[in-house]
Amino acid sequence: MDVEKVFHMTGGVGKTSYAKNSSLQKKACDKVKHIILEAVEEVYLATTPKSIGIADLGCSSGPNTLSIIKDIFQAIQSISHKIMMHRRHHPHHLISDEFRVYLNDLPTNDFNSIFKALPEFHRLLRQDKNKDNNDGLIPSIFMGGYPGSFYGRLFPNSSLHFVHSSYSLHWLSRVPPALYDKEGNSLNKGCVYISESSPEVVQKAYLNQFQQDFSLFLRSRSEELVVDGRMVLIFLGRRGTEHVDKGNSFFWQILSRSFAILVSQGGIEQEKLDSYDVHFYAPSREEVEEEVRKQESIKLERLDTVEMDTIEQGIESYGTTVAKAVRAIQESMISSHFGEKILDALFDNFARLLDDEVVKEDIKPITFVLVLRKI
Amino acid sequence: MDVEKVFHMTGGVGKTSYAKNSSLQKKACDKVKHIILEAVEEVYLATTPKSIGIADLGCSSGPNTLSIIKDIFQAIQSISHKIMMHRRHHPHHLISDEFRVYLNDLPTNDFNSIFKALPEFHRLLRQDKNKDNNDGLIPSIFMGGYPGSFYGRLFPNSSLHFVHSSYSLHWLSRVPPALYDKEGNSLNKGCVYISESSPEVVQKAYLNQFQQDFSLFLRSRSEELVVDGRMVLIFLGRRGTEHVDKGNSFFWQILSRSFAILVSQGGIEQEKLDSYDVHFYAPSREEVEEEVRKQESIKLERLDTVEMDTIEQGIESYGTTVAKAVRAIQESMISSHFGEKILDALFDNFARLLDDEVVKEDIKPITFVLVLRKI
Repeated sequence: MDVEKVFHMTGGVGKTSYAKNSSLQKKACDKVKHIILEAVEEVYLATTPKSIGIADLGCSSGPNTLSIIKDIFQAIQSISHKIMMHRRHHPHHLISDEFRVYLNDLPTNDFNSIFKALPEFHRLLRQDKNKDNNDGLIPSIFMGGYPGSFYGRLFPNSSLHFVHSSYSLHWLSRVPPALYDKEGNSLNKGCVYISESSPEVVQKAYLNQFQQDFSLFLRSRSEELVVDGRMVLIFLGRRGTEHVDKGNSFFWQILSRSFAILVSQGGIEQEKLDSYDVHFYAPSREEVEEEVRKQESIKLERLDTVEMDTIEQGIESYGTTVAKAVRAIQESMISSHFGEKILDALFDNFARLLDDEVVKEDIKPITFVLVLRKI
Repeated sequence: MDVEKVFHMTGGVGKTSYAKNSSLQKKACDKVKHIILEAVEEVYLATTPKSIGIADLGCSSGPNTLSIIKDIFQAIQSISHKIMMHRRHHPHHLISDEFRVYLNDLPTNDFNSIFKALPEFHRLLRQDKNKDNNDGLIPSIFMGGYPGSFYGRLFPNSSLHFVHSSYSLHWLSRVPPALYDKEGNSLNKGCVYISESSPEVVQKAYLNQFQQDFSLFLRSRSEELVVDGRMVLIFLGRRGTEHVDKGNSFFWQILSRSFAILVSQGGIEQEKLDSYDVHFYAPSREEVEEEVRKQESIKLERLDTVEMDTIEQGIESYGTTVAKAVRAIQESMISSHFGEKILDALFDNFARLLDDEVVKEDIKPITFVLVLRKI
């Protein structure tokens, strides 16, 4: 399956869209926002650019997309305002007057929805700015959409000061080819990701693909960032060396079991399930650090582990909320492989199985937050 | 009506889409392609940039969008190859290694369709390049979508070398407000554009809006272009000082008459028609030249008048082809004002009325091709 052509969050603003089902990601972003804004301040003070370049990689399409851009814009305005106050004699010296924003995702992402929201977004930024202070220095904002895989170059040399990527880098560029033998048969039968029953070769295949992808990502960004530019990368990971735990891998186990129920009911064929594997990897802290170490021009300034609470205060069950989130993310890939018809039944199973599990034991997926600097 | 929110070519690839009904525009582009490519060569020789910035303003969504980008890319490759052959001792000196492409249209344009075509487009460019010569110097191509009105700033200061805009600049930023009196009643009753029965004030309202828009366009681009950067602007115009002739205004007259038939049949109300006017203007050569003269940093290098043949070799009648083209362009505005239901009947009328007219007399819409230089 060609990930670049198929994989995307569910577009539009309907009931099953990513826009309506990305509250978990939003919650996580809010939890780590201070780290993002600190890094933005650091890069601003270190580089004091006249024209500042910001990229959001894997921006998707929904309320989260523009909300983080707004936060970054305001952080820059606020720090530049503070600097200006201290340096009255050179009032314009350190003020960025151009704010370049590059929104990136795969070419199948629903960019139209983001673009339609832009005129209103610009009006909002100008209003806020006028309200906050009256120095009248509103920088020009130039926003563009850049479709393409971030596993490869996307932007000109030394054009970026700050790179943000939230909940995207756990997606690999492809399903690891080493998951299949020469005849194309899966070596990971019945499972969609590394599980207890997966042979050793499956873990290796996933790790290799992660290493290849993540190093290409770092190399590409290193060419695009200016010296002292920063990246904040937020993605799912795992606690220790074990792949199978009550973290992210557990959700894929639940998905495998949801598929298995459909197989047992005759809804899908066993072979079809056997040949389905996800292009996902939750690395360990050590695996992440090792790849960064190999990249001489990139320095790891910070690596935090954030745990999300499973207890949600809402009308829906936790299982239902997660099922909807996973559906908005996985729908394009699952439809492409199995057809759309199975989606409702599959995610009903998922919600039920997950609700059964959370009462037994806490599931604690972890998120890594990396701050990296171009040296 | 908010033009920025409503106006767009019909998206997608369906029967009534712009992508399927832009062959007239394509034909015109082919006719003036040599002028575009000459200007590209000139700007390349004058500026010899390492990183070249190209913008297509009003790129729309369809086969024409990427086809002109491909032509420009190949022209630059070819001229840089020639230069390299002559300057073997500094082989890399004058070669652009970054090719930045900015695709612009209003936020409601179907950018998703363009973006989905990009992976294939990149593969095609690389293939062609490998076939043509084996020097192995393929520049990196960075393409972004920039939603927004070109009547205002879109790109950073001095970031562009070449600006292309085809069949977009005859669209005004809005329906001229002076077309309506204080109570909001139209002063151009029964007509959608300047016609024989239009009072003097209507012509003035349109001319004023054109002057305001075109000068803002030139001023904005002047800030975005590097010195010696070029623009090739292609848009509809008129022959002499008279507004009403057998050129572009005649198509609007046919549209007014198509509406009038629906009014007489009770399909739409007279008042509804009275309050509808298009945000279009076909300037004269003198009007264009005057606005350019006012812009001190922009020099008019060339202004050609191109006439399109009305005789089409196809299965459909000329009337039907034009009706489809006008529908793909006007559908969003007409639907928003009158509702979608009238579209089929309206454009059936249009095709028939136009076919009746072309046998009587030639309709000769003219197109201006401007080459401008930033000084």
